[in-house]
Amino acid sequence: MSDLKFSVQGESSSATQFIGKTRQFTLVVDEPQSLRGTDEDANPVEYILAGFAGCTNVIGHVVAKELGFTINNLKIEVSGELNPNRFLGTSNEERAGFKSITLSLIPDTDASIEVLAEWLQIVEERCPVKDNLQNNTPIKIAVEKEYNTI
Amino acid sequence: MSDLKFSVQGESSSATQFIGKTRQFTLVVDEPQSLRGTDEDANPVEYILAGFAGCTNVIGHVVAKELGFTINNLKIEVSGELNPNRFLGTSNEERAGFKSITLSLIPDTDASIEVLAEWLQIVEERCPVKDNLQNNTPIKIAVEKEYNTI
Repeated sequence: MSDLKFSVQGESSSATQFIGKTRQFTLVVDEPQSLRGTDEDANPVEYILAGFAGCTNVIGHVVAKELGFTINNLKIEVSGELNPNRFLGTSNEERAGFKSITLSLIPDTDASIEVLAEWLQIVEERCPVKDNLQNNTPIKIAVEKEYNTI
Repeated sequence: MSDLKFSVQGESSSATQFIGKTRQFTLVVDEPQSLRGTDEDANPVEYILAGFAGCTNVIGHVVAKELGFTINNLKIEVSGELNPNRFLGTSNEERAGFKSITLSLIPDTDASIEVLAEWLQIVEERCPVKDNLQNNTPIKIAVEKEYNTI
């Protein structure tokens, strides 16, 4: 297959809330009150963790099929810790994002531990979100001033 | 502030669909039919883009306040391209994730272009999601076999 493009377009509905559209879907991103938000949906880094879990779910099933075993159910837990001081502007001592991310895959399956170890290795190798979180990715951010057309 | 922990827990509802919980919120991640999914919500990499946009929205407003200008509205567009062959298992030539990510901030504001350039620089420096996407982050994935307790 050739390259696929994915995109999200949206706008702020408040200083903490973003309403994004991607294809036919609406994704609302907010912050909890403890981070000065209105807490109407998950926050940006929770979106990142959900995307990572969703990615391992898809790849996990694809690879299980390739290896010839069945996953009856797959539980996934993912978490990370970050220090909010850089984000809040109170200190630059630590990085802004997650210091590390931990994900647990808990499949209900008859596959042996040995097969699951092989499965895990392939899942890790082929998950797009893991690649983008674990490794460097070029990012370009531009600002365009919106012209008032009154 | 001390470190904050964020987490998502959930399980597969199909080979492509993951239903995650984070605090009081439910996040459904699926794949479009073109990627063999049931297309009931955004896909994993769209979640990543939405989280990135939401993060720049929050930081954008925080930093505007610090710099003393008002954002009446902030439009955000974010996109990235990836090659699905590694994910699908058809080729290992290219990386799994986004090759690059481009984000545009389009504020409706009276701030000058010079002030907006300073604003952008600070937003880039303090956005947790940008940090995790642009730079290396340690990731641990473990597999635990679920024991049937019949």
